[in-house]
Amino acid sequence: MERIYLDNNATTIVDPKVFQVMEPYFVQMYGNPNSLHSFGSEVKPALAQAMEQLYAGINASDEDDIIVNSCATEGNNTVIMSAYYDLIRNGDKNHIITSSVEHPAVGETCRFLESLGVEVTYLPVNQEGIVSVEDVKAAITPRTALASIMWANNETGMIFPIKEIAYACRNRGVLFHTDAVQAIGKLQVNVQDVPVDYLTFSAHKFHGPKGVGGLYIREGVPMVPLLHGGEHMGGLRSGTVNVAGMVGMGMAMELAVENLGYEIREVRRLRDKLEDALLALPDIIVVGSRSQRTPNTILASIRGVEGEALIWDLNRHGIAVSTGSACASESLEANPIISAIGADKDLAHTGVRFSLSRFTTEQEIDKVIALLPKVIGRLRDISSTYATPGPACQMPEPQ
Amino acid sequence: MERIYLDNNATTIVDPKVFQVMEPYFVQMYGNPNSLHSFGSEVKPALAQAMEQLYAGINASDEDDIIVNSCATEGNNTVIMSAYYDLIRNGDKNHIITSSVEHPAVGETCRFLESLGVEVTYLPVNQEGIVSVEDVKAAITPRTALASIMWANNETGMIFPIKEIAYACRNRGVLFHTDAVQAIGKLQVNVQDVPVDYLTFSAHKFHGPKGVGGLYIREGVPMVPLLHGGEHMGGLRSGTVNVAGMVGMGMAMELAVENLGYEIREVRRLRDKLEDALLALPDIIVVGSRSQRTPNTILASIRGVEGEALIWDLNRHGIAVSTGSACASESLEANPIISAIGADKDLAHTGVRFSLSRFTTEQEIDKVIALLPKVIGRLRDISSTYATPGPACQMPEPQ
Repeated sequence: MERIYLDNNATTIVDPKVFQVMEPYFVQMYGNPNSLHSFGSEVKPALAQAMEQLYAGINASDEDDIIVNSCATEGNNTVIMSAYYDLIRNGDKNHIITSSVEHPAVGETCRFLESLGVEVTYLPVNQEGIVSVEDVKAAITPRTALASIMWANNETGMIFPIKEIAYACRNRGVLFHTDAVQAIGKLQVNVQDVPVDYLTFSAHKFHGPKGVGGLYIREGVPMVPLLHGGEHMGGLRSGTVNVAGMVGMGMAMELAVENLGYEIREVRRLRDKLEDALLALPDIIVVGSRSQRTPNTILASIRGVEGEALIWDLNRHGIAVSTGSACASESLEANPIISAIGADKDLAHTGVRFSLSRFTTEQEIDKVIALLPKVIGRLRDISSTYATPGPACQMPEPQ
Repeated sequence: MERIYLDNNATTIVDPKVFQVMEPYFVQMYGNPNSLHSFGSEVKPALAQAMEQLYAGINASDEDDIIVNSCATEGNNTVIMSAYYDLIRNGDKNHIITSSVEHPAVGETCRFLESLGVEVTYLPVNQEGIVSVEDVKAAITPRTALASIMWANNETGMIFPIKEIAYACRNRGVLFHTDAVQAIGKLQVNVQDVPVDYLTFSAHKFHGPKGVGGLYIREGVPMVPLLHGGEHMGGLRSGTVNVAGMVGMGMAMELAVENLGYEIREVRRLRDKLEDALLALPDIIVVGSRSQRTPNTILASIRGVEGEALIWDLNRHGIAVSTGSACASESLEANPIISAIGADKDLAHTGVRFSLSRFTTEQEIDKVIALLPKVIGRLRDISSTYATPGPACQMPEPQ
């Protein structure tokens, strides 16, 4: 059976061009770049090129830092713990602002800080699933060390007003971090235009390998390393450099930028086609307006259909979708976004996320569109809660 | 020019058999193992197998934990920071014991804790470069939270009395961690026989890929995660699993165990052959007795020859050796081990490390042996400090 992968917000296929540049750095060029001999020095040009690709990809300045680390979870932990050590433990700050819909790598780190006595504000989202600039402004106090708000949400694809939030933080002297994991390759990410202090990303979300990520740090912004040791990455992230991973992430970033036009135009067209087909069925709603969403994502709530049941049925047909983030998918809990946006309780377990990529074909989308009415119909037929279409399926209107 | 790699304590070639099992997990089987669909589930058997290989490799019990992370630097930081959060910040302990010759991933993390007010004892080494059990016992106080002593030293290959140290700590209720980066694949590492509480390793030191490591945690031993987030690795290490890396590390561990006999017999024989040839030249000493060293390592001090100069000369002939750890190799500082064992100051810059692996051939060693007298002779000819062989070259005798 030919399978169809529509779970690209969880992870992505490694672009064959990415794997091609990585391949020599396992068995052939295996030197440690810190070594002085030829085995070490021969890998350095590729690392320098990867660094250039990363800087170019987010339009970082030469004076800024980009740390290559193991994943966005590490990057997010690093930024939040750095704020703790630098400004809270050794300073007079005691407050962090974040949102209620961050990835657990931000949310759980904030909860850990709460256990250390730090105050954390978890901002709500509106019915579109977005954090408002006004809420961020209102939450800032003289003791706020850091705000951490994602660029785009992993479950809904909703794009947050990061530029405005970044300026609001800068104007009040608050450091600002954004988890841009879902933005790279889907949106233009330009740190010259958007004054973030820290920005995290993960290669495997944009067709790079798993196990490697990046942390952007604006020039002059403080950073206490999370990993102490051999002073790699200019002392900011110790640990032997993952050469193949870094080279792969560099190429993945270059390809993400190169394909951004295609993503915004063609991936969006396929996404919209699928979304139109979903919305043509009764009692289905999609979270958030298309114009404010990453081009590849649909979070649909399908009344009367348990998300997990739909996933299983689609999986039997070779189609991969998810209920939400992969991290939480095994827990079978209510979708936190659908809860967060204030939908009625019946809908919390009905969330299904479709996330496309530049490797998604029109033929694949057409197959999914042909199959969905049958699968949804069958599940509704056996549902104990779903009777006939009715007005109760409405989500609350955006304010 | 055919090159010869004798810097295996810095990093190793990825065994082609390791790369072979990793290769499918980039472009073909790229699913996130946390996903419920077939792309996620199809990678799980390989991860389960890798975990079995890791457990078998160090003879861990099913009730113990092994966390797959990004490197030993991460593992070492995790253990030390966990002791801080669990026993020092939230407990009544305030003391950590380590040695003066640990890898910076331990030493620098301890120094970071000192900046937070923690007391750290850095135990000296004797003239053989070894930490004594008696020193560990003497350093333990009622407020000692953790001792962290490496299994074998990266620069000298000297094997520390880890079993005795582990028992000494256990008897006094002190948690014990060992950085076993240089032990895996070179020595038998059996956590049933040696009662360590935590043990760290890194795949790229035993012919696995860079960017993936492991942390063993004995059943019932406390652990505060360093990376908070999506609750991977049973909540102990968040971050999307590096599938290819984990699969590669599992195979690398299996091969390390499988080849241990060869390492102990054949790699040692080649090492001894090289060492004999070195010692046949005048004014050369090797740190530590062979019987107490990992089978692959020689740290030689060559009077009148700057370590860096020898590295450069050998490199011109395609031979890769190092002055010491790769992490420190760019800093051109005095070799900390040669300083630590109390050798006279003239020798501190003369350390050169030769580290072999199971991929080292007899032909390669013969080539190096043939070349060394010429290279060393030339460097001594142009040396301003080296005149004629004399008694001043003696290292202090072991006590």
